[in-house]
Amino acid sequence: MSLQSIKYSRGSLEILDQLLLPGQSKYVVVRGVEDGWKVINKMQVRGAPAIAIVGCLSLAVEINPEEFGSKKSLRQEIEGKLNYLVSARPTAVNMKIAADELITLANELDKDETVAVSEMKQRFLKATEAMLEKDIADNRAIGAHGAKAIMQRVAEAGGAPAASSGAVRVLTHCNTGSLATAGYGTALGVVRQLAELGKLEHVYCTETRPYNQGARLTAYELVHEKFPATLVLDSMVAALLRAKNVAAVVVGADRVASNGDTANKIGTYQIAVVAKHHGVPFYVAAPLTSIDLAIPSGDHIIIEERPDREMTHVGEHRIAAPGINCWNPAFDVTPASLITGIITERGVFKPAELKEAITKLLES
Amino acid sequence: MSLQSIKYSRGSLEILDQLLLPGQSKYVVVRGVEDGWKVINKMQVRGAPAIAIVGCLSLAVEINPEEFGSKKSLRQEIEGKLNYLVSARPTAVNMKIAADELITLANELDKDETVAVSEMKQRFLKATEAMLEKDIADNRAIGAHGAKAIMQRVAEAGGAPAASSGAVRVLTHCNTGSLATAGYGTALGVVRQLAELGKLEHVYCTETRPYNQGARLTAYELVHEKFPATLVLDSMVAALLRAKNVAAVVVGADRVASNGDTANKIGTYQIAVVAKHHGVPFYVAAPLTSIDLAIPSGDHIIIEERPDREMTHVGEHRIAAPGINCWNPAFDVTPASLITGIITERGVFKPAELKEAITKLLES
Repeated sequence: MSLQSIKYSRGSLEILDQLLLPGQSKYVVVRGVEDGWKVINKMQVRGAPAIAIVGCLSLAVEINPEEFGSKKSLRQEIEGKLNYLVSARPTAVNMKIAADELITLANELDKDETVAVSEMKQRFLKATEAMLEKDIADNRAIGAHGAKAIMQRVAEAGGAPAASSGAVRVLTHCNTGSLATAGYGTALGVVRQLAELGKLEHVYCTETRPYNQGARLTAYELVHEKFPATLVLDSMVAALLRAKNVAAVVVGADRVASNGDTANKIGTYQIAVVAKHHGVPFYVAAPLTSIDLAIPSGDHIIIEERPDREMTHVGEHRIAAPGINCWNPAFDVTPASLITGIITERGVFKPAELKEAITKLLES
Repeated sequence: MSLQSIKYSRGSLEILDQLLLPGQSKYVVVRGVEDGWKVINKMQVRGAPAIAIVGCLSLAVEINPEEFGSKKSLRQEIEGKLNYLVSARPTAVNMKIAADELITLANELDKDETVAVSEMKQRFLKATEAMLEKDIADNRAIGAHGAKAIMQRVAEAGGAPAASSGAVRVLTHCNTGSLATAGYGTALGVVRQLAELGKLEHVYCTETRPYNQGARLTAYELVHEKFPATLVLDSMVAALLRAKNVAAVVVGADRVASNGDTANKIGTYQIAVVAKHHGVPFYVAAPLTSIDLAIPSGDHIIIEERPDREMTHVGEHRIAAPGINCWNPAFDVTPASLITGIITERGVFKPAELKEAITKLLES
């Protein structure tokens, strides 16, 4: 079973403390909303989907044993606590969206006179738990679609598998695994699926400066899973693709525009350019919620520039010359023209087909 | 005047302690061969040309005040001490080449009956000092040829200068400056020359993982010179070339093959691919001594793979997940097809012209 960063069963929640990774693997018990707020605020849990799910589940474990005298008091409890959880990391938009959904549900149940207070609580708990299940199920579907697309592509190209078993070598960037999602992962979900199918010859992960999510988190997951895996530096991708017969690159996405342009962790665009040069297919793995049809193209995505200190220091240790300016964009935009396919839980789409396909899916 | 990492006048030698950079700028006095051996062995001085010159100059300051009873005792002193200096870092081939040259000279002077012992010493000192001067003069010539080539290219392309003054933005990788050479630098010499001509709008330098020579050493030099400069991560080159109107990339070389294929610090090949994709000219700056006509192509250059620890640790601090494998090639090979020009002290050559041009220069 894949690494669990969120361990939940009704009434019980533990999360893997990401602040201690990769040195220590320790789970923190989350007994309620107060604990939930703290683990989010202190970044013991990170990754937008994971934050939302941990926040909501922290409320679920808190209200699970409680008795509520009225539906109104339950609704007020839900609304107040969820808004409080949003304040733990106000920029994590998924937490806000999840909170709004659950508050709407609480309001509807409160108004529905056929629903008793105990049933309202049960239905609220189930809705919260469904978020966890849906995220994992979506990631598993992304993994299955992605693995299939890569294997198909390799079969069509002929001769690309590195091993006689037809197994392939793939490269990924940043962390898109169990540590960034509710579990399984997006791009790393594709890698997991390849491994489950016996088709993973080797996975390479990039260090992903400046926060080293690849070296710290993806490498941690790959070691945990005992996958055949190797860490490379961000500067080595071209040398790697030239030397090691890599069959595909698969990365995550922060946001995909309507035309397929994709904003993702800094360095993604460069990998896409290098993949194109070497004729290696380049896939983006993202749930449908990351695709924003309201954004026509990548030109409309504003790139956050982060503080110099992330680049000049490792912990308290200064690694760059004092006085040097830094340019530290957190993301870059990979143009659709460099993307072979966008892997979603509903299938793999070419960037040019994306808008029409998603519109149809949303209508159906 | 550009940063001096080696301060020499007859009888006196000091070197900038590179182990303390970028935090502290402290010169170490080198009183003789014993000190010279130590600063080389402890890596207070690094960069193959710099090591050779510091080694030879440490002998020069030692024998400068001494009286020698016979030419034979002087020759024995020179030969013994130079061989001892080679043992400080046996893989630094430039020190061995320089030692062999000076030992040959000492033997010739010893045999030449018209030369007295005092004259032999003077001529030996001058030959040693000439090495320092030649390296700096060669670098200045590289700088001049390179700056001219870049300005010409920009003028031909039309409209590429970022500033109305015709000044340009350039990108460099690793450290090729005063800290790696006897002074001035190769690729960084081109940058210096652009600045001297008032044509440097901005210089970007890459961090250059895993040893961060860009962030630590090049950034240090650029801050010292007060050049308009910005540090970027190795993953940001594509985003940079897309966003910042960079006119040229200029890098150094460890070795250039006869066909123009160039081995240089890991990451160079990737930058060349990315430059090609963005239509940005890509220059290699290297003295003629780095061009090896005996190597027909890059396929014949063996790439050293270095220990994992360089990637997994910063100092004593582990930054990568325990148990992860690493791939750590120290260099990569940039194929000639991605190189716009090779800048030498005798002019700038297209890779395809290199062999013929160098052969002619060596014959003349």
